[in-house]
Amino acid sequence: MVNPLDKSKVPQATVPRLARYLRVLHRLERDGVPKVSSKELAEKLDANAAQIRKDFSYFGEFGVRGVGYEVKFLIGELSKCLGLNQDWNVVICGAGKLGQALARYRGFREEGFKLVGIFDSSRYVIGTEVDDLVVLAERDLIAFVRENNVHIAIITVPAEAAAGVAQKVIEGGVKGILNFAPVRLSPPEDVFVRQVDLSTELMVVSFYLSQRGQ
Amino acid sequence: MVNPLDKSKVPQATVPRLARYLRVLHRLERDGVPKVSSKELAEKLDANAAQIRKDFSYFGEFGVRGVGYEVKFLIGELSKCLGLNQDWNVVICGAGKLGQALARYRGFREEGFKLVGIFDSSRYVIGTEVDDLVVLAERDLIAFVRENNVHIAIITVPAEAAAGVAQKVIEGGVKGILNFAPVRLSPPEDVFVRQVDLSTELMVVSFYLSQRGQ
Repeated sequence: MVNPLDKSKVPQATVPRLARYLRVLHRLERDGVPKVSSKELAEKLDANAAQIRKDFSYFGEFGVRGVGYEVKFLIGELSKCLGLNQDWNVVICGAGKLGQALARYRGFREEGFKLVGIFDSSRYVIGTEVDDLVVLAERDLIAFVRENNVHIAIITVPAEAAAGVAQKVIEGGVKGILNFAPVRLSPPEDVFVRQVDLSTELMVVSFYLSQRGQ
Repeated sequence: MVNPLDKSKVPQATVPRLARYLRVLHRLERDGVPKVSSKELAEKLDANAAQIRKDFSYFGEFGVRGVGYEVKFLIGELSKCLGLNQDWNVVICGAGKLGQALARYRGFREEGFKLVGIFDSSRYVIGTEVDDLVVLAERDLIAFVRENNVHIAIITVPAEAAAGVAQKVIEGGVKGILNFAPVRLSPPEDVFVRQVDLSTELMVVSFYLSQRGQ
């Protein structure tokens, strides 16, 4: 009943929503809930049921009208779609406060993201411990990424250092980057960069606050 | 020529893009560039020129076909739209690594977000200094928010503490929340919550990596 999925047809805005659906579904599974309707999911997510059905439709027919979706099945399909049916080796580049916060963030590990290294360029930071990892020197980044089959790099260095670090991890073979540095990277076509910009997030809040003041 | 803007008509997905356009425009202004076309903007943003023109169209006619947009004018309009023509008082709730990283993040201040307080519930953290601010006790949060006209709260406490903290800042009068805790809040209708979920961001990366592997 499920069509083979052509991921290239999934709109960009749908992908983060799938991750959010998955989180809620995990919670339902823990609570022992076997089935859920798009309406119930929508309520839990403060989202729109039609949007949810549309998002799921990219993956074929998941649910039965009036009966809802099987939670376990849906978790399996969404996980596969998001690439969570395999392990991903991750490095963090930049062991400042943000890098340390991310290294300690448990949510990553639960979804199959394995932090294998954390790097910094400061001799005051190299050799210190973050969680269970010793901070390594940025000059060893390319070799480490290559030898440890690292898939994803999280960049938490200052803006002016981000391009240099990105170049290194890409040279080592990384194909996916989560960039927290407030600067746009220009990667080669076969490298995917997701930009997380913290001031953008605050501006979304101020947009809505000022809208209310209109 | 510019229509009065009804912000409620601006689609949700457009808002973060406006913030990104603004950042690039600021850079162009610093470089002394007076005009820019949607095509040039698209190249700098690795985005689609038609999308940019569509996003701008919500604000009326900004540009002249074939001539492009005036950078300074566009910065003014986008800033107004995003609510950046006023100052916003911000508190950070949770002085752990992530809270400290955000407190030190310069990007916030540049856009008129003024960090006025940082709070924690641990007696080992209360009284320590983060940047120029002394960490205050969470039990004083409601009164502080009320007395200091705080508009926005950034929540960086663990998931299980987030709902309690949100309730306090809302009781104190906060109408906008940026929530980093991996849990969905259920605020009253007049409070806007923007959820930043770090594992969601990583899943967006793994989605695209696994797509390539198909």
